[in-house]
Amino acid sequence: MEYKILSKISSPDDIKGFNIDELNELCAELRQCMIQTVSANGGHLASNLGAVELTVALHKCFNSPNDTILFDVGHQSYAHKLLTGRFDKFSTLRTENGISGFMRPDESPHDPFITGHSSNSVSASYGISKAKALQGKNDYTITVVGDGAMTGGMLYEALNNAGNTKSNFIIILNDNKMSISRNVGSLSRHLKSIRHKKGYHRSKKAVKSFLNKIPLIGKPLANCVLKIKASLKRAVYKNNIFETLGFEYYGPVDGHNLDDLIKILEIAKQENRPVFIHSVTTKGKGYSFAEANPKIYHGVSSFDINMGAQSNGVKSYSDIFGETMCALAKKDKKVCTITAAMSEGTGLTEFAEKFKNRAFDVGIAEQHAATFAAGLAIQGMKPYFAVYSTFLQRSFDQILHDIAILGLPVRLCVDRAGIVGEDGETHQGIFDVAFLSSVPGMNIYSPCYFDELRNVLKKSVDFDFPCAIRYPRGTERVGNDYKITDEAFDIIGGGKKAIITYGRIFDNAYEAYKQLKSDGEEITLIKLNKIYPLEKELIDGLGKFEKVYFFEEGIKRGGIGELLGSMLNEKKIKTDYKIFAIDNTFVKSAKVADSLKKYHLDSESMVKIIKGEI
Amino acid sequence: MEYKILSKISSPDDIKGFNIDELNELCAELRQCMIQTVSANGGHLASNLGAVELTVALHKCFNSPNDTILFDVGHQSYAHKLLTGRFDKFSTLRTENGISGFMRPDESPHDPFITGHSSNSVSASYGISKAKALQGKNDYTITVVGDGAMTGGMLYEALNNAGNTKSNFIIILNDNKMSISRNVGSLSRHLKSIRHKKGYHRSKKAVKSFLNKIPLIGKPLANCVLKIKASLKRAVYKNNIFETLGFEYYGPVDGHNLDDLIKILEIAKQENRPVFIHSVTTKGKGYSFAEANPKIYHGVSSFDINMGAQSNGVKSYSDIFGETMCALAKKDKKVCTITAAMSEGTGLTEFAEKFKNRAFDVGIAEQHAATFAAGLAIQGMKPYFAVYSTFLQRSFDQILHDIAILGLPVRLCVDRAGIVGEDGETHQGIFDVAFLSSVPGMNIYSPCYFDELRNVLKKSVDFDFPCAIRYPRGTERVGNDYKITDEAFDIIGGGKKAIITYGRIFDNAYEAYKQLKSDGEEITLIKLNKIYPLEKELIDGLGKFEKVYFFEEGIKRGGIGELLGSMLNEKKIKTDYKIFAIDNTFVKSAKVADSLKKYHLDSESMVKIIKGEI
Repeated sequence: MEYKILSKISSPDDIKGFNIDELNELCAELRQCMIQTVSANGGHLASNLGAVELTVALHKCFNSPNDTILFDVGHQSYAHKLLTGRFDKFSTLRTENGISGFMRPDESPHDPFITGHSSNSVSASYGISKAKALQGKNDYTITVVGDGAMTGGMLYEALNNAGNTKSNFIIILNDNKMSISRNVGSLSRHLKSIRHKKGYHRSKKAVKSFLNKIPLIGKPLANCVLKIKASLKRAVYKNNIFETLGFEYYGPVDGHNLDDLIKILEIAKQENRPVFIHSVTTKGKGYSFAEANPKIYHGVSSFDINMGAQSNGVKSYSDIFGETMCALAKKDKKVCTITAAMSEGTGLTEFAEKFKNRAFDVGIAEQHAATFAAGLAIQGMKPYFAVYSTFLQRSFDQILHDIAILGLPVRLCVDRAGIVGEDGETHQGIFDVAFLSSVPGMNIYSPCYFDELRNVLKKSVDFDFPCAIRYPRGTERVGNDYKITDEAFDIIGGGKKAIITYGRIFDNAYEAYKQLKSDGEEITLIKLNKIYPLEKELIDGLGKFEKVYFFEEGIKRGGIGELLGSMLNEKKIKTDYKIFAIDNTFVKSAKVADSLKKYHLDSESMVKIIKGEI
Repeated sequence: MEYKILSKISSPDDIKGFNIDELNELCAELRQCMIQTVSANGGHLASNLGAVELTVALHKCFNSPNDTILFDVGHQSYAHKLLTGRFDKFSTLRTENGISGFMRPDESPHDPFITGHSSNSVSASYGISKAKALQGKNDYTITVVGDGAMTGGMLYEALNNAGNTKSNFIIILNDNKMSISRNVGSLSRHLKSIRHKKGYHRSKKAVKSFLNKIPLIGKPLANCVLKIKASLKRAVYKNNIFETLGFEYYGPVDGHNLDDLIKILEIAKQENRPVFIHSVTTKGKGYSFAEANPKIYHGVSSFDINMGAQSNGVKSYSDIFGETMCALAKKDKKVCTITAAMSEGTGLTEFAEKFKNRAFDVGIAEQHAATFAAGLAIQGMKPYFAVYSTFLQRSFDQILHDIAILGLPVRLCVDRAGIVGEDGETHQGIFDVAFLSSVPGMNIYSPCYFDELRNVLKKSVDFDFPCAIRYPRGTERVGNDYKITDEAFDIIGGGKKAIITYGRIFDNAYEAYKQLKSDGEEITLIKLNKIYPLEKELIDGLGKFEKVYFFEEGIKRGGIGELLGSMLNEKKIKTDYKIFAIDNTFVKSAKVADSLKKYHLDSESMVKIIKGEI
């Protein structure tokens, strides 16, 4: 693949002199490069394809990095990366030590902040903007947010706060009419009404006719703009939520029309109050498969460009969760599910179709989701809140305050628990065990195999206390042959050294156990199924071992390994004890297997540790 | 004090037959009873005084508990408590085993959910409403929120989700024009514009003239209302944010006029879509001191009714924090402070006056606050986010994702750390150490004395890493005589038993130490100043003790006691070890001293433990 233009761009300055035709050619190459790279490495495709012209227009009109350009979640930042000196390395997207899938200040001075979790961008950019102003800098701060991110309360908190700023603060809504999948909620309807109502056509026409009056691109626009701005303002759709929140609203503008985008950005630069630009785009723009089915191409694994993404037919833990929930809901009319904009990701698509009334997609709103579930529970329903471990961090206060104080039976179904791989630091599910186990009255289960997940979900229908059921990304190992039980913990083998572990990596420990056995070394293997609270009998039984090794796919501080270590001490059980876990660090982007190896959580490392070779 | 009417009310049914005059008399007695009780016990006075007529009108028009009436934060629920069978016990307000200062489902069937932290109510009530609907119940669900709560993103998430409901779902905004103190942000300005613009008078008149057309209270209004509703809708102030979010908006209505309130509630009952009623009230209404200075009477300690609340002149940790920050900001232009609507509570009033540009009150928006601070930090400012420990729980994801991954030097100034007393379970600051220490790269300091707080704040100006500085509610003990140091930990004395502790209760341990010494028992006392990470030298030195006792004013699971216990084990230090902390439970409302005693964290218990009497 040849990239005639893109290959020559080493910084955004290189596009400043391009005319519209050249910029459009550049857009085509950017799309080609993204499709090429994501088809090989996997990644977020649909949102990135939708943001190409917008990104090009931004770099045409502003001077990054002096002007701050921040994209809410990296889902939209690939074009930005390609234009800011990272084209050469872009083939390493989402690989170990490669280009991150999200914005990373340590990757480039053009990435002003880290944006992995949705809806955090305006808070960060408003802080950046204030800091610049306090230090006498008058640069622009531009934040690009998706319409999905607008469902997150944190973004609203930031808009409410930033609406009175005097700095050069511009927010661009990249409205592709979807969140990760279908967008939900009242704001989504509001945006739709702006796009579709009578007012839309009137205002679209007005914006267009106004823009046509502006002379050549790049020429000084100030005077011209100031004179006719007032008339535009009267014409465009007024009284929307963004004006209420203190922003000067411009739009809607066609987010794939470079000419219009550039002109409206130049207008925005003339304001001395916060501006909100509403840009309407098509998710997946320019790749027919992605346009036709954007939610499949939101986050996607590697695929054949000519064939499009194909399901590999392998079931994931999320699939098992979804299937089981359907079976449970069929039997029990009180069973319901809640998701924070993650129906597909958590395996709930079928549930949402079959049990429409009992499937709640609340938007990217984890705080609300947890308390909404508590409200359902206190009135006798049986709520299951399916959520990625990393996003559940946003529900911590709600779990403590709204679920746990009353001991409400909300089932937290914690998907992507443990190491998640290529998404990197921002998305690892390594903190949930530590923070959930500090919640009084919480009960935590960490199944390793599909059948265990099915069993605990089934059992939890009758729970009258809060619980978390956590399971990893991906699938169980083909050919696993461990015989599962219904106990809180299992003990197998009978050596003087013991391995204790839980969750997915138990399977690694079991493989290590078999390997050691065939090497003539007998050990005891202890599998925790319920990981919190720990059973008294478990602790009491540990005194007979010379050495106990605890393996934990999670943060060490506050983990179950530490809990057990401390309990051993308090119970005066003086066995040697060693924890292998992730210690006071974040886990970088890498293949799951490589990360597990790095932290000695793979079966090979376990064998070596028992043999004293590590 | 005689309560002629109130004393005869054992349930809301008792007021159903009252006429407006009788209801107004009831309101006067409710106010009197609140002022009386809060002047004796302390509590939240100003907001409660403002919500009296609204509460009476609600119980006149709806049938609690079948109809759900939920108040966002208990700040507004005293009248509700007095009308729902709790008048007899009301003198026990905020005492151990007494009436809680907030809504408590275990206290009364009329309290549908727990509301201690702001902005959670609509999430809970929407869950309740959906659960009722799924179970075939058509009762009303009414939620009363303050305008302060509207700055919380969680509430916006809930409104965005609930705006499309078909259930009988009513939200009442009790707009007293303030949050806890001055309300901030764009929404606050929006509310002001609704109240003050031309449209206000027009719509107020229209509402009034419409209401006058409605016949007697209590009579069936359905037909009458349906006929003229449309005309009202045209007349009232339109295009506000609540309509955008899918609600039928009514208002503004005078929240102290029972006649108007009752009529508008009866209208709301006729809707078959979500309704938003905007009621304008006066914070502190009916008590001159509180009307004149509502922020002092937001939360207040006991006072003389005729004199009003007087400052006791005793300095708190918050005062020391505020003073020190002023001194630091004077010297260093990069120092700035952030508060989430807690300027007074965290001691920042003077800072906000003196350093207006560098004092950021972002509203009740802890998620935004943390990330906004991160944005300031990444551009070289030195942000101090002052926040109560219990509210910092809402920033957990932002601390991990937005502060810690980049290692940004945001200083979390964690006020009300530890046991807080009468506010009870919802407000205890006992989880921060556990969740903060699981954050990679975090550094946690827990000063015991004012001078220590001053010192660590001063030192932190030059930190280039994230830190938390935590300190308790209240003041240091008069007459304390411990000589503070600048070390990460101090060791005094030299016995075979050691006590380790940190924070406020170190002073208790020091008293115990002196007591034991005078009783002829020599112990070693170890004071942790920096509590995370722990110093290597500390652990290594513990081998020489026969027994080590760790006292922790916080949750045991994930606390520093457990960390140390586990480290001892991993380092093969085989000393006996015992942790005294709060174990897998919430701490109920009680005097701080009583709670400390209950968990063996007072000096008397410590002496007994060392002597083997506990």
